[in-house]
Amino acid sequence: MKTLVIVSHPEIENSMVQNFLKASCAGLEEVTWHVLPSILDVAFEQAQLKTHDRIILQFPLYWYAAPASLKNWLDTVLTGDFAFNGSQPLAGKEFGLVVSTGIAAKHFQAGGSEQATMSEILRPYELVARKLGMTYLTPFVIHQLGYWSETAKQLLVVDYQRYLSQQNFTLTDKVAWFQAQLAQRQAVAEDEAQQQQLVLIGEQLAEQSELLTDLNWQVQMIRQEEGEG
Amino acid sequence: MKTLVIVSHPEIENSMVQNFLKASCAGLEEVTWHVLPSILDVAFEQAQLKTHDRIILQFPLYWYAAPASLKNWLDTVLTGDFAFNGSQPLAGKEFGLVVSTGIAAKHFQAGGSEQATMSEILRPYELVARKLGMTYLTPFVIHQLGYWSETAKQLLVVDYQRYLSQQNFTLTDKVAWFQAQLAQRQAVAEDEAQQQQLVLIGEQLAEQSELLTDLNWQVQMIRQEEGEG
Repeated sequence: MKTLVIVSHPEIENSMVQNFLKASCAGLEEVTWHVLPSILDVAFEQAQLKTHDRIILQFPLYWYAAPASLKNWLDTVLTGDFAFNGSQPLAGKEFGLVVSTGIAAKHFQAGGSEQATMSEILRPYELVARKLGMTYLTPFVIHQLGYWSETAKQLLVVDYQRYLSQQNFTLTDKVAWFQAQLAQRQAVAEDEAQQQQLVLIGEQLAEQSELLTDLNWQVQMIRQEEGEG
Repeated sequence: MKTLVIVSHPEIENSMVQNFLKASCAGLEEVTWHVLPSILDVAFEQAQLKTHDRIILQFPLYWYAAPASLKNWLDTVLTGDFAFNGSQPLAGKEFGLVVSTGIAAKHFQAGGSEQATMSEILRPYELVARKLGMTYLTPFVIHQLGYWSETAKQLLVVDYQRYLSQQNFTLTDKVAWFQAQLAQRQAVAEDEAQQQQLVLIGEQLAEQSELLTDLNWQVQMIRQEEGEG
């Protein structure tokens, strides 16, 4: 699965969030990092969309929407003829959003100072995905990264990498994704001790995963019996 | 009351809707028609906002939002320092939207092909108005103007003029607005016959308006008695 990350930010060099996210996905082979240039090559942009399976729009939230450069990209690249009249070259692909904001999560709800949920605010993008015949992924929203602890940021790296590269968002695929990551790290592990530790984590993960499969099976059986009873 | 109409359209000369709306408001003295230039003079834009009471953003709906030039205007002109940190120079003013679309109204509802209402789609603008402390007016949406009859278009001129220049949107103000328009026309009427006709319309309007006031009064009395009973 190939992922295209389209980044829109008017001052990207100075953006702590964008620098953090760029560093976070540096090791991912199947991910194309694409910062929107000031002058768009429409044919190139359209071709790139066709050769990727998951399209991510990544931006800071300004006035409840993406910056103007991303709107310009939507208006210019996604022409009716390319996107939905006739063939639908993007249909069936996935459409994700990575949105950063300096406002705390608690404000985005009824009664909060923003009075609206992120789902409501980002609804126009959901409608874009729908129009293109794409699957809308749950937006990946990062609130106030500046205040996060180092541990929280490390977990964010993993979550972000999964958002970009995990095939599906089921638990089975999550486990598979982690196992693939472990195998990759094992291959480049520096000493034997480190390698053994990674093997151990892999084994534990496999064990837990089997246990979970068993539990799921039992839950299904109980439900079936209840249904019959 | 002074109204500022901020128009965003990438090909405004060729836009039938924008040409129609421009012609429709040509006679209105208190209305400033402002097409967004490609390079913004931020200080001028901010000053203009301060000297008007009703701010209208007017645009065609592209990908469920305004064109990029309006987003650029929002991002550039409405800086935090100008708009909401410290003093709130736009608080208390009115915020309206004039939105055109080539898609029929019936599609903007649950089960319609667009799957969302205009209220949902335009919600981010409602949130902008809220953030600025402005009163959000019900959006003025024009669907598929190309298919309208001449009569319908004539009524649209009146509705659009009212949206721009009617003080409040109560029935009393509606009548007052029509009476002011009639007086203005009487002053420039070409012959006596035309003038007499306008006087007649004015008298009828006043009569109907009095009748309506009486009826409203009676309804209030009935409600009061019911409340007491």
